[in-house]
Amino acid sequence: MTRVAVAGVGMAPFGRLPERSATSLGVEAVDAALQDAGLAWPDIQTMYCGALLLGLTPGTRISEKLGLTGIPVVNIDNASASGSSAFREACLAVESGRVDVALAVGVGKADGLRNAAGPPPRPGSDQHKETQFLRMQGLFSPMGIFAMRTHRRMHDYGSRIEQFAMVAVKNREHASKNPYAQLRKPQTLDDVMNARMVSDPLTVPHCCPIGDGASAAIVVSEKKARQLGLAPLVSVEASCFRSPSSDAGTTAQDSDTTAQTARDAYEQAGMGPEDISLVQVHDAFTVEEVDYCEAMGFCPEGEGERWVEAGELGIGGRIPFSTDGGLLSRGHPNGPTGLAQIWETTQQLRGQSGPRQVEGARAGLVHMVGVGGVCVVHILKRN
Amino acid sequence: MTRVAVAGVGMAPFGRLPERSATSLGVEAVDAALQDAGLAWPDIQTMYCGALLLGLTPGTRISEKLGLTGIPVVNIDNASASGSSAFREACLAVESGRVDVALAVGVGKADGLRNAAGPPPRPGSDQHKETQFLRMQGLFSPMGIFAMRTHRRMHDYGSRIEQFAMVAVKNREHASKNPYAQLRKPQTLDDVMNARMVSDPLTVPHCCPIGDGASAAIVVSEKKARQLGLAPLVSVEASCFRSPSSDAGTTAQDSDTTAQTARDAYEQAGMGPEDISLVQVHDAFTVEEVDYCEAMGFCPEGEGERWVEAGELGIGGRIPFSTDGGLLSRGHPNGPTGLAQIWETTQQLRGQSGPRQVEGARAGLVHMVGVGGVCVVHILKRN
Repeated sequence: MTRVAVAGVGMAPFGRLPERSATSLGVEAVDAALQDAGLAWPDIQTMYCGALLLGLTPGTRISEKLGLTGIPVVNIDNASASGSSAFREACLAVESGRVDVALAVGVGKADGLRNAAGPPPRPGSDQHKETQFLRMQGLFSPMGIFAMRTHRRMHDYGSRIEQFAMVAVKNREHASKNPYAQLRKPQTLDDVMNARMVSDPLTVPHCCPIGDGASAAIVVSEKKARQLGLAPLVSVEASCFRSPSSDAGTTAQDSDTTAQTARDAYEQAGMGPEDISLVQVHDAFTVEEVDYCEAMGFCPEGEGERWVEAGELGIGGRIPFSTDGGLLSRGHPNGPTGLAQIWETTQQLRGQSGPRQVEGARAGLVHMVGVGGVCVVHILKRN
Repeated sequence: MTRVAVAGVGMAPFGRLPERSATSLGVEAVDAALQDAGLAWPDIQTMYCGALLLGLTPGTRISEKLGLTGIPVVNIDNASASGSSAFREACLAVESGRVDVALAVGVGKADGLRNAAGPPPRPGSDQHKETQFLRMQGLFSPMGIFAMRTHRRMHDYGSRIEQFAMVAVKNREHASKNPYAQLRKPQTLDDVMNARMVSDPLTVPHCCPIGDGASAAIVVSEKKARQLGLAPLVSVEASCFRSPSSDAGTTAQDSDTTAQTARDAYEQAGMGPEDISLVQVHDAFTVEEVDYCEAMGFCPEGEGERWVEAGELGIGGRIPFSTDGGLLSRGHPNGPTGLAQIWETTQQLRGQSGPRQVEGARAGLVHMVGVGGVCVVHILKRN
């Protein structure tokens, strides 16, 4: 199996950009990644595009604008995990030996979410019965699910909602130093506590914004990495994907799948949590950062809230999480989110993150979950 | 690079099945493929699902019904080429050495097409300008495009519409022997000529039906194929994917991309058209079968219509095309179409096709095109 390196990363801004088409955002991100890699569009041998419900073949439309070079273009819709899945398929294409240079691009428009539910289920159909049942349980909206999860942790560990609010404050502070982030204006604990309630106990800043954006990463074989003279070389040490497993028991949560996927990744990389310098996590809701921090072995179970309060998950803390602002403030346009995480991690490992640089960053873990409880984890390393 | 073999194939019926959910159709096809391979669901190590605009992660929903085994599930929407793309990614996953057993499933519901255009483009946006221009040219509907293409061939080669109608008659005859086909009632040349006009000169039977359905294929490494004792062994000799290339000039058609992709596939397989026993082709419109027959080197340019008239593309002819009825009669629910082609080809190469068996079939070519002019070609071989 060929080892894979990240040759270049690029982003278009995340935010509410109604006048920008998905295609133009995607082209901007790819151009930035090409420039970063010192490559030109005709060097790309295969392309994967991750997008959520953006209509017909959004990646193919992006490739047409970049030039008709005849390469394969595969469009992936794995919901929140679309960008991470596209990155993983690009790595697989290089590992297969078929190509030396593969592009992953993610693109998102808030418009896409209008189609999120697909056609309404027919009354009496299986899908109708399933969604009716979930709605009755308050389990249809992610806000409802993660509000319950927050209450559960408060019950189990005696934690306070202020501690979860501190995740939102911290990630906004990180985002204030990231010009590509969607929400950059610093906020205080009071701001979070006094904001509009969405689903008790979660106010608006406990929930990530949706929006528009694009990001891209180019991965290459070892041979090509040598030719390009990449230094420092950022290598992909683990690329792992799991869906929920009945092994995890009948009460399994995303954190259980996260724990299993992280274990796979540590094994693949020959590393443990102690070797990781920074983490990008699926912090769509504040409680998730706390849950996954524990699930991935960075802090003991039930202590995540105290770690947040003590600043351990901030830049300068024991294990910085969401250094670019995370889903909560960098934003979550779905398709590109996982690739924005790769962008951030790659730049951190190269020491290019300016005011939000994690000093001495050697390895970064990148985590995403998606609809259906799937989980994707990558580990990147500076060589 | 590990060589890849097809271990099992399965289908759910194609047709108008409003009471069947996409998930239940997908599960039926996967169960059939597992049974065909002599494998159980927990043997599957990774899964790719091809579907057109079916809402959130249709493959993940199928996997949940089959059992929570924790495997990666990647959802691909490459329009008409979704199933073929899923098959190709499954082959790549095996080639990468990461897995020995990969599943590709395709699923389609005519409902999905209601979302086909995505959110309506905003007036003034790039997308709005593009589609407005195409509509003005009559180039928005595929019926319009292929009606023009048919007229062009009639002008260039002096062919008659009756010759194209004979493709529809032939493929319906093949479908009448395929219990999974959507349209099985034989039709005469008069039936086709006198049917309702859709876009001059194309009447309804010149155009494929949309509908519901599912199909699946399981691919394995050589090592796993030996363990399973597959005999005869159906191997994947070529897996090629191209998008349009500016090399083909400014008047490039799907047939030009087809010609390039077929050349790639012949080179990869070390074969030529003379080694191919049967072909499954993207015959969404009758003219396509004629165009692609020439583009892939099976008959000289401008002679396709005469080959059809002489019965050369029928079972028993020089090079049988669309032996299961093709898109025109087996049906085209988009997601599963490319995998139905793999199902047909695999069974033909094993000599299991009963009344529609191509005698002495040794190698089969499988061809699909999709939105954006992409083309996917596989060559399967009996060993």
